[in-house]
Amino acid sequence: MKIAIDAMGGDHAPNAVVEGAKQAVEHYNDLTITLYGDEEQIKPLLGDTYERVTIHHTSEKIENDDEPVRVVRKKKNASMVLMAEAVKNNEADACISAGNTGALMSTGLFKVGRIKGIERPALSPTLPTIDGQGFLLLDVGANVDAKPQHLLQYAIMGSIYVENVRNVQKPKVGLLNVGTEEQKGSELTKKAFELMSDAPINFIGNVEARDLLDGVADVVVTDGFSGNIALKSIEGTALSMFSMIKDTFTQNMKTKLAAAMVKSDLKGIKDQLDYSEYGGAGLFGLAAPVIKAHGSSNGRAIFSAIKQTYDLVEKDVVNLIQKDVESMENGKESNDE
Amino acid sequence: MKIAIDAMGGDHAPNAVVEGAKQAVEHYNDLTITLYGDEEQIKPLLGDTYERVTIHHTSEKIENDDEPVRVVRKKKNASMVLMAEAVKNNEADACISAGNTGALMSTGLFKVGRIKGIERPALSPTLPTIDGQGFLLLDVGANVDAKPQHLLQYAIMGSIYVENVRNVQKPKVGLLNVGTEEQKGSELTKKAFELMSDAPINFIGNVEARDLLDGVADVVVTDGFSGNIALKSIEGTALSMFSMIKDTFTQNMKTKLAAAMVKSDLKGIKDQLDYSEYGGAGLFGLAAPVIKAHGSSNGRAIFSAIKQTYDLVEKDVVNLIQKDVESMENGKESNDE
Repeated sequence: MKIAIDAMGGDHAPNAVVEGAKQAVEHYNDLTITLYGDEEQIKPLLGDTYERVTIHHTSEKIENDDEPVRVVRKKKNASMVLMAEAVKNNEADACISAGNTGALMSTGLFKVGRIKGIERPALSPTLPTIDGQGFLLLDVGANVDAKPQHLLQYAIMGSIYVENVRNVQKPKVGLLNVGTEEQKGSELTKKAFELMSDAPINFIGNVEARDLLDGVADVVVTDGFSGNIALKSIEGTALSMFSMIKDTFTQNMKTKLAAAMVKSDLKGIKDQLDYSEYGGAGLFGLAAPVIKAHGSSNGRAIFSAIKQTYDLVEKDVVNLIQKDVESMENGKESNDE
Repeated sequence: MKIAIDAMGGDHAPNAVVEGAKQAVEHYNDLTITLYGDEEQIKPLLGDTYERVTIHHTSEKIENDDEPVRVVRKKKNASMVLMAEAVKNNEADACISAGNTGALMSTGLFKVGRIKGIERPALSPTLPTIDGQGFLLLDVGANVDAKPQHLLQYAIMGSIYVENVRNVQKPKVGLLNVGTEEQKGSELTKKAFELMSDAPINFIGNVEARDLLDGVADVVVTDGFSGNIALKSIEGTALSMFSMIKDTFTQNMKTKLAAAMVKSDLKGIKDQLDYSEYGGAGLFGLAAPVIKAHGSSNGRAIFSAIKQTYDLVEKDVVNLIQKDVESMENGKESNDE
C-alpha cells in the first residue's frame, strides 16, 4: 500500500509528520510512504534507516491563511497539492495532511474528485465519548448549506466507515436535532428524517447535542454549519474547563498538593477526551481516502491518522460507499418506474 | 410592578417557585406577584406572611410532553396559559415559567403577541463565561428556519437587553459562524453579516463556537437550530466532564483525600458555569417580558429570573426595542424613496 503525506502541514511539521511516518512503516510491513515537502528539513529528521519512506521534494507549501479555493491554481507545487495529485495519478492509494482544512477540502475535490453519485463530500472527525468508543460526526463544515439528500448520503457513508474501519456492528445512526421527537426540527431535518428512515442503515432517529459525549449514537449526521458549531462548542468547553481546573489547582499550597495526588487521574480524563487517538477527519465521498489530521497533531496523532488511512484502503471503503450509492440509485429508479 | 408566575412549571414546582417569590418580595418593596397554580399545594408553602404574593387557583397545568402548539387551545385553564393571559389583559407587567419551553413559546406568541415590526421572537438565555460576565445567545430554538432579517432583529434586541439590563456599555455583538473571516459561512450568515454591518450596534463580526466561553462577545446571534446545538453541546460537555471528574475523585482513598482538599474550589468552577445565576431565558420580541426559567430551577434560580424580569420591566426594554425597530423601518423607507 502506498500513502502520500503532506510533510509540511500542521503546527508541528515536518517533525511530527516524519515521526508518525517512521512509526507507521515500522508497524506495517507492506506500507510505503511518500513525504511531500522540503527535503532539506525532512531528510535530517528521517535519517537513512527507513527504506519505505521516500521524499518528494518541493519548496512550496500552503499557509493557514491561504484562500482555499485558489490554492489548487495558485500553488500548483505546494506539498498538499502534489500529494493529492499523486492519488489522482494512481501513484498513491490515499493521502493525509494536517494543514489548512479548507485548502485540503478544495484540493481533494479538484484533484481526487468525488465518488460517482455522491453530491457533496463530508468532513468527518471521530469525537470522544465517555465510554471511550467515540462517535463519527459528519459533516463539520465541508458543506454549510446542505440538502436532505446530502444528509442521507452522509448517513450511508458514515455507517459504512464505522462498521468497517471502527468495527462496530450495525452502527447506530442519529440525526442531530433540537429535540428527539420525530416531528422536531427544521425543514432540512424533517426531510432528512424521512429519507434516513427508509435507508439501509440502523437509524435511531433524532439525537440531541447534550447526549453526544454519552455515546447516544455511533454516527451523528448533520449539516456542515451545525456540525461545525457542535464540534467547536465541545472542544471549546472542554478546553475552558481544563484551564479552569488548572487555575484552581495552582491557587495555593493545599490545592497544589491535591493536584499532585490526582495528577495522573486528571491526565486520564484529558486523554479520554483527546480525539487525536481516533485518527484524523475523513473527507468521505471522495474517490480515494483523503484524511485531515488535526492541526496540532504530534507524531502519535499522525501515526493514528496513518493507521486509519491504512484501514480505509484495506477495507476498500470507497468502493463499498460507491456500491451502496449505486444500489440506492437503482432502487430509486425501479421505484420511479 | 406586577409579575405573574406559573407556580406549577419546572422540576421543583411549586416549592422552588414559591421560595423564589418569597425572596423577591422581600427584596423589592414595590413588587407584587401572582402565583398561578394549585392553591392547596401553594398555600402551605407560602404561609400568611407574604401580603404581596397572591394565589390564582387553577388545577390544570401543562406537562412536559404536552404538544406546544395545542396547549393554548386544549388547556385553556393551565397555570401557564392563565399567567400569560394576565399579561395580555394588563393585569401583570410580565410573566415567568420554568415549565415546558415549547408550550411557553407558543403561549407567549398567541397570548402576549409580538412587538409590532418584529417578525420572530427569539429564545435568549445568558450563558456563563470564564470571566463571570456571561454572554447572551439568541436564538436557541424559537425559530429553527431563520432568515437574515430575523438575525438582524435578534442582534438589535440582544444589544438593547445586554446594555440596559446587564449594564454593559456598547455590548459587542458577534455572529456565530464556522470561521471568523467575513466571507465565511452559509447563505444565511453571509446575508446576515451584511445587514448587521449596517445596524446601529457594536458589531464585531463573525465569532466561532470554541471562543464563546472565553467571552469573545456579549451578544451572540445565530439561527435557532445552530443556537440550540451550541447551547446543548456546551451544557452536555460540561456535565460529562463534571461526571468524569467525580468518578476520578471517588476512585480510591488517595483521590478521595485530594477531592476533600479541593472540594470548595471545584464547587467554585461548578458555580461559575451555573447559568441559573444569570436568570432565565428571555423570549425577546414579545409585547411584554416573558421569561423561561430553567427547568431544574431551585428557589435561588427563580429569584434570579424574577430580578431579571423586574429589570426588563423597569428599563422598559420592550419599548426600547420597538423604537429601534421602528426607526430602522423608517430609515429603510426613506432610503427606498
